[in-house]
Amino acid sequence: MKKEEFKKEFLKLKKDSGTHSPSIATLLGALPEVKIDVDACFLSNPYATELFLKYLDQDLIRTNKLRDVLEFYPPQNQDVSRFISKAIGANQKNIFVGNGAIEIIQAVIHRFVGKKLCIIIPTFSSYYEFVRPDTEVIYYRLTKEDNFILDPETFISFVKENQVDSIVIINPNNPNGGYSSLEDLNHIIESLKHLENIIIDESFIHFAYENIDLSQISSEELIKKYSNLIIVKSLSKDFGIAGVRAGYALMSEDKVSSLLSNGYLWNVSGLADYFFKIYSQSDFIKEYNIVRKKYIMNTLIFLTELNSVQNIKVYPSKANFALIELGDRSSFDFYLDLLVDSGVYVRDCSDKIGLEGQFVRIASRTFEENLKIINAIKKVIS
Amino acid sequence: MKKEEFKKEFLKLKKDSGTHSPSIATLLGALPEVKIDVDACFLSNPYATELFLKYLDQDLIRTNKLRDVLEFYPPQNQDVSRFISKAIGANQKNIFVGNGAIEIIQAVIHRFVGKKLCIIIPTFSSYYEFVRPDTEVIYYRLTKEDNFILDPETFISFVKENQVDSIVIINPNNPNGGYSSLEDLNHIIESLKHLENIIIDESFIHFAYENIDLSQISSEELIKKYSNLIIVKSLSKDFGIAGVRAGYALMSEDKVSSLLSNGYLWNVSGLADYFFKIYSQSDFIKEYNIVRKKYIMNTLIFLTELNSVQNIKVYPSKANFALIELGDRSSFDFYLDLLVDSGVYVRDCSDKIGLEGQFVRIASRTFEENLKIINAIKKVIS
Repeated sequence: MKKEEFKKEFLKLKKDSGTHSPSIATLLGALPEVKIDVDACFLSNPYATELFLKYLDQDLIRTNKLRDVLEFYPPQNQDVSRFISKAIGANQKNIFVGNGAIEIIQAVIHRFVGKKLCIIIPTFSSYYEFVRPDTEVIYYRLTKEDNFILDPETFISFVKENQVDSIVIINPNNPNGGYSSLEDLNHIIESLKHLENIIIDESFIHFAYENIDLSQISSEELIKKYSNLIIVKSLSKDFGIAGVRAGYALMSEDKVSSLLSNGYLWNVSGLADYFFKIYSQSDFIKEYNIVRKKYIMNTLIFLTELNSVQNIKVYPSKANFALIELGDRSSFDFYLDLLVDSGVYVRDCSDKIGLEGQFVRIASRTFEENLKIINAIKKVIS
Repeated sequence: MKKEEFKKEFLKLKKDSGTHSPSIATLLGALPEVKIDVDACFLSNPYATELFLKYLDQDLIRTNKLRDVLEFYPPQNQDVSRFISKAIGANQKNIFVGNGAIEIIQAVIHRFVGKKLCIIIPTFSSYYEFVRPDTEVIYYRLTKEDNFILDPETFISFVKENQVDSIVIINPNNPNGGYSSLEDLNHIIESLKHLENIIIDESFIHFAYENIDLSQISSEELIKKYSNLIIVKSLSKDFGIAGVRAGYALMSEDKVSSLLSNGYLWNVSGLADYFFKIYSQSDFIKEYNIVRKKYIMNTLIFLTELNSVQNIKVYPSKANFALIELGDRSSFDFYLDLLVDSGVYVRDCSDKIGLEGQFVRIASRTFEENLKIINAIKKVIS
């Protein structure tokens, strides 16, 4: 298939996927001629996927227990949250288990957000796409000049001036990876404790770090102090299990019981329930932290290499991806060249609101794959 | 553990599970002393589970493709519905894919049902538990005298008199298995075409029959004629895959796009997506129909055996279970005796509204398990 034909076909697929990229499965199904060598659109830790598969194999496949997980009804929401409570030490009554973070985002936006929601852009589009018709969205723009980094004071003033009832902070932010320190976040939350909802999306927090030990960061502790906090945890990215659909959120007891009182009965599959079980096991978490740190190291090397490529600008990131600005070159052409010439699939950001210019988002994958990504970019740029 | 202690522990578990039975997993987790030999609470075709496992093994496990299904994001809702469209020949725009039927029930009850909903009791409790606070529920009672069979004319008059906007019909009904013929259903739908929503839950329809060939029955065709119809399909029971969480619904194009416009983006797991793929394959469906008919045969034998047991009344069922009335004996004691003495787990119906008396619901399982169930009942009854 020629590049022009492919371009046309792809644009059709993209249109059907709205403001998200078509998944590899969808893409390959519709365009079987495409050869994808590296999926650098997909934001997850591949080493963690391997670890999960190792446990799955030893616990379920070799023991013939897979049938139980597939055949029977999974436990109810509040039974699954017991494992999470054990894993993170939070009160079970503050835990809501979701069929991926996306279900939690939908539930929170539909049920708790009021008349005015402040969203920081660029962002993950579902946050504004999922709002009810009676919710007004106010956008707070991160700027190129600030490297898309959130300034706490300016943001706090903006939120107060606009009298919103709810805000969303993705930390590190998607699609740029900009990170707000726990200290900054604390300050924002304390200054905005009058709001109805402060939604903190920590989908990429396992890839951030504040010390040389790369210790795991989370604002989960703050749930005890601020009843307006809603902390969303996607496990798809950190644990590399997007197909399993597993996520959870911490929020006030009232909010959890409001959601569970008339819904979300069996929203977690047998496999997700199995994941939550091993998530509460110290042996798994010990092994997980090794692959988490390995992947952060890998990403640091990748970002350093990316930074050395001429004629592109790499924005600061503490996530497992980088936002790249291309100058005069069209991001769609760049994206297409990478895919067709080198089989490297990245995220063209031309549909992202709040990004003016030509941007792509590139994920860090395994060490070997990252080398391929860098070489492919150099080839296209030169 | 003595029966009395067990009784106490179980009542605690039951309380936590609300109006649903604790799952086997939850039960065994909390009460490891319990030995369950036959799970006759669980309403699914065990032969279909075996078939699914055979395909899973050959397609994903032996080929090492399981990783793809677990690691990557599943396709979006409307990509998954393509397979269903192919499988059942319905327009893709009328198909909404759910994370099990329970997610669809929640979505429909929250989003489309208006001020007044008519529910036929006894029923599956989520239908009234999931209503919004501003929805009034009107109950239409099936009676023992009518063998819990729905009389179309009486029901139609009741619905008209009460001026409800929406109704739910589970066909065959849960927990009694009473079946309304397609002819009766057609008449009800035609007479009530002025309603906003007619929800038909076909969770158990694959176990019903109207001819000697045991041909598959469905009201799916009617979606073309009646825009107020919502047909809910759970795949957990017929295909024996409750842990996978897969279901779909047929409804008007407007309703599908209203749901998809601000939610339900990646609500189907990689494994459920795999299921929908094989669901659209003729080889799988051919094999499925063999095990479906085998299970219906098996259930017919089981119901006949049950009917011959002294001192219990078995209500007519075209589902894969039967509602049994015990006379003077307490249903909870009967249930407990079956579990502790014979390891047979059934559904005590003492919490079901609309059932006055002592009732249990007993599922049909494999031929061998059904023999054990019958023997266990005879032992308790004698």
